[in-house]
Amino acid sequence: MKRYKYQWPGDKSCAFVFSVDVDAESPFQWDNRGKPVAGLGELEQRRFGPREGLYRITDLLDEFSAKGSFFVPGVVADRYPEILPYLTEQGHETGLHGYYHERVQQLTPDENAAVLDKSIATYQAHTGQAPRAYRSPAWELTPELVAMLKTRGIVYDSSLMGYDHPYCIDGLAEVPVQWVLDDAIYFKFSGNGTDAWHYASPDGVFNRWIEEFEGQREFGGLFMLTCHPWISGRAQRIRLLRRLMTHIRQYDDVWWATAAEVAAHHIATQATRFEVSADLIDTNF
Amino acid sequence: MKRYKYQWPGDKSCAFVFSVDVDAESPFQWDNRGKPVAGLGELEQRRFGPREGLYRITDLLDEFSAKGSFFVPGVVADRYPEILPYLTEQGHETGLHGYYHERVQQLTPDENAAVLDKSIATYQAHTGQAPRAYRSPAWELTPELVAMLKTRGIVYDSSLMGYDHPYCIDGLAEVPVQWVLDDAIYFKFSGNGTDAWHYASPDGVFNRWIEEFEGQREFGGLFMLTCHPWISGRAQRIRLLRRLMTHIRQYDDVWWATAAEVAAHHIATQATRFEVSADLIDTNF
Amino acid sequence: MKRYKYQWPGDKSCAFVFSVDVDAESPFQWDNRGKPVAGLGELEQRRFGPREGLYRITDLLDEFSAKGSFFVPGVVADRYPEILPYLTEQGHETGLHGYYHERVQQLTPDENAAVLDKSIATYQAHTGQAPRAYRSPAWELTPELVAMLKTRGIVYDSSLMGYDHPYCIDGLAEVPVQWVLDDAIYFKFSGNGTDAWHYASPDGVFNRWIEEFEGQREFGGLFMLTCHPWISGRAQRIRLLRRLMTHIRQYDDVWWATAAEVAAHHIATQATRFEVSADLIDTNF
Amino acid sequence: MKRYKYQWPGDKSCAFVFSVDVDAESPFQWDNRGKPVAGLGELEQRRFGPREGLYRITDLLDEFSAKGSFFVPGVVADRYPEILPYLTEQGHETGLHGYYHERVQQLTPDENAAVLDKSIATYQAHTGQAPRAYRSPAWELTPELVAMLKTRGIVYDSSLMGYDHPYCIDGLAEVPVQWVLDDAIYFKFSGNGTDAWHYASPDGVFNRWIEEFEGQREFGGLFMLTCHPWISGRAQRIRLLRRLMTHIRQYDDVWWATAAEVAAHHIATQATRFEVSADLIDTNF
Repeated sequence: MKRYKYQWPGDKSCAFVFSVDVDAESPFQWDNRGKPVAGLGELEQRRFGPREGLYRITDLLDEFSAKGSFFVPGVVADRYPEILPYLTEQGHETGLHGYYHERVQQLTPDENAAVLDKSIATYQAHTGQAPRAYRSPAWELTPELVAMLKTRGIVYDSSLMGYDHPYCIDGLAEVPVQWVLDDAIYFKFSGNGTDAWHYASPDGVFNRWIEEFEGQREFGGLFMLTCHPWISGRAQRIRLLRRLMTHIRQYDDVWWATAAEVAAHHIATQATRFEVSADLIDTNF
Repeated sequence: MKRYKYQWPGDKSCAFVFSVDVDAESPFQWDNRGKPVAGLGELEQRRFGPREGLYRITDLLDEFSAKGSFFVPGVVADRYPEILPYLTEQGHETGLHGYYHERVQQLTPDENAAVLDKSIATYQAHTGQAPRAYRSPAWELTPELVAMLKTRGIVYDSSLMGYDHPYCIDGLAEVPVQWVLDDAIYFKFSGNGTDAWHYASPDGVFNRWIEEFEGQREFGGLFMLTCHPWISGRAQRIRLLRRLMTHIRQYDDVWWATAAEVAAHHIATQATRFEVSADLIDTNF
Repeated sequence: MKRYKYQWPGDKSCAFVFSVDVDAESPFQWDNRGKPVAGLGELEQRRFGPREGLYRITDLLDEFSAKGSFFVPGVVADRYPEILPYLTEQGHETGLHGYYHERVQQLTPDENAAVLDKSIATYQAHTGQAPRAYRSPAWELTPELVAMLKTRGIVYDSSLMGYDHPYCIDGLAEVPVQWVLDDAIYFKFSGNGTDAWHYASPDGVFNRWIEEFEGQREFGGLFMLTCHPWISGRAQRIRLLRRLMTHIRQYDDVWWATAAEVAAHHIATQATRFEVSADLIDTNF
Repeated sequence: MKRYKYQWPGDKSCAFVFSVDVDAESPFQWDNRGKPVAGLGELEQRRFGPREGLYRITDLLDEFSAKGSFFVPGVVADRYPEILPYLTEQGHETGLHGYYHERVQQLTPDENAAVLDKSIATYQAHTGQAPRAYRSPAWELTPELVAMLKTRGIVYDSSLMGYDHPYCIDGLAEVPVQWVLDDAIYFKFSGNGTDAWHYASPDGVFNRWIEEFEGQREFGGLFMLTCHPWISGRAQRIRLLRRLMTHIRQYDDVWWATAAEVAAHHIATQATRFEVSADLIDTNF
């Protein structure tokens, strides 16, 4: 069937975005809200991120003279007030990622509005600027939240997987993610007895990522990598990321960009070509 | 022990069927029936299938001048009315796959009859033809359903694993599947916290599939591959499928066929040789 | 610390036993006892074993002129009465494996005695001989059952993992197993939504098995492989087993034996050297 | 961002500690406390450790003229009274690891104090010395327990992951662990139906460990390996460990040390440089 091929700037055949979800303790805090927490184990694991992992990642980006897109939950920005100024100063993009890393599909629209407004205020307090980028915690979204993001001046969302190149959902630009390109699903291990699997091997993840990269070159899509400092800041993962980026760097036809740059390109050139509706589905039958 | 070797047409030593279960949102809809759904995440993942993945798969089949066997749930045919006419026009086989992707072992016989009749009517409305092929959702079957399929003129079922070549169950031709040759078990990931494992590596799945293919060449069986557009339409999976098909194509003794062609061959040549009964088992002891 | 090295016959440095648990539907029957079962899916999967898989395995053993040790649940011997006579005629060892594949640690001692007596009677009815070998379903054992096995003339058990060479537990010879050398943990997949993982890759399992084999050559232990006809009779698994056995066959210092031969060797030469007690452990503290 | 690089003695760029958690039956006992236990299966698996596995590990360390750090639960020291004297005599370091392998975050501070005092008394009874090293069972810790360790003269803890080199938490030296360098998460399999995954392949684990080792050489951290005798004493795992150690041994810039030596180095040289607080986190919001 005749289909449109996504158009990238100039002679580029695909795009590469290095995105970072700076979660630190926030998902742990959300998942344990209202419950007593006695142990330091997972907290210390997660604190490796703001102590060390985040900076190993920015050092790695510097090796490649690349800029990343960092999504920071409000509570992390408040607890580690050096993070947002540091990332801004280094020239990286920053955006919203909830306040307590809330699962948006579990909240009412009013609760989601309150969380969004609180995280916008926090972002402004730390950066002096209005946020333009949004990535939902755990990559969920609701139709009402799409509308809220638009009315609050958010330029794009980066949480959905309905295409593997940019598109628009209810008129909001979507810079899509993919679970297969997330680090946490392969490398998160709490050790508290609730894990459903252990660590993937570096070579095995390299294979998953490289095959997706080569596929995006062929199909002309977006290779959106997502990392977490407490996970990908670990020594072996920096090596894996370097190996991946070294592979990507050998090609001239890959556009290394931030998510913001990709969104701007999409809005300027193809905003009406790949439009979908934020429809839920009938489950009463 | 002396056993019959399955006979394939002419000098072929085994058969290869490329089958596609065009599920889109239907299993999600069934699994969430009666429950409120607020999130767009998995829905957008699944909608990649009818938007893009299905056509990447038919393009891939075109590369090999091959025809596939596509099983389409009724609700998907209704929601995306272009799909059944498109597949028919392209010369692919199409068949039934439930209406809402119902798990047939959880329904009463009357409920299964109603679902079957509704999906037959839907199929006829979209294609103008009576369906001849059935694959059950999630690859289950009941003795009563076997009987219903026969009385409604269905020529074969493709849901069971009692042999690795065609056989008959209660007189209905069975073109068997295998979980090891399904894409979803390796590559489905919802990300909603209920996943029991993450993505397999492409090289690892290639190894599972190639070993099974070589085994079928040795034992003279059926290599029945099953894909889903929202899963195997993803860039890296098209690459994996191409690699697999390129490997298979190098042999002259493999019969590339649709499931319908395999069923017709079986009925014409060996319908009485591999017959089993649709017996349940005593669990009251 | 000075430790005894296990002594094998002549100049052999380790032993290789190919064991087969001929489960067919029996574990499914046990796990679903008292519950209604409507679906044919897993039953047809399991019936591949007695239809085809068992004979592929004996054919493979014939390729290597080797004899296996086959443990058959009573209900399987009754449902497929050709199995025990066939295996005996082919010169393979046969032994007990419960009646309905009961989990012995979930039964009272009296229940275990009744099951054991029923499975002994079934074995005698099919073979005309008293059984001498026992492997418990799911590889559990209780102190009382150890005693019952001895009083009923069972020569050895093959269910425990307290050493990786033969030993005695409460005076009963133990020919030990290992989960790492079982096929089912890597290759069983029901597809009914309860699976905790999917299929391992053949190359990956080869690596696990070869490393264990090389380790047993080094440490002088027992390489006890365990297969199931409905699992390892599948085409790709026969290839894997052939590859493993071809590797093992290249060495002259490996004793290919049945479990019965290993037990007899142990009892004759080292029965008092590696003795342990069938002690449970204090959990009231 | 300017960060301190961890300083190792002389010209060493990283450190390697071989640690062993001598659990035997203790975690099984703790997890089943108050429940009846009828089966011998997992007990026999675990008893392979004190019977055989422990000594294969010390033999392996002897091959490399290396000393390990062994953490022994009190109940294991009491049940196998030869263990602590043997390890001491061989020149290995020994330390505490709970009494019944208790999960410290599930106990009250008073209960943790009682367990700690009991395990200290047990250690002294078997060694004649006061313990100086602590590793918590299952690698958890509470703020109160950190304080208790200090007041009882424990020199360091080895249970947390807040850095990948030594640091101090509330003034107690921490010699950090990593789940990715634990054997149990890859190779523990009970077979009782509760396992969430099966055995990893030796080659796959080698890849995870080697990549982490190379990463620690690059970042100047600590490669803290953790093994269990009932798991890593198995034949194929000794081979894997030997392969790993052979790889590490080829470098001159790796400091092979016990955890005690690493702790002493840290306290003497950088005790105030990497200090963190044992803070829990607000979950009432």
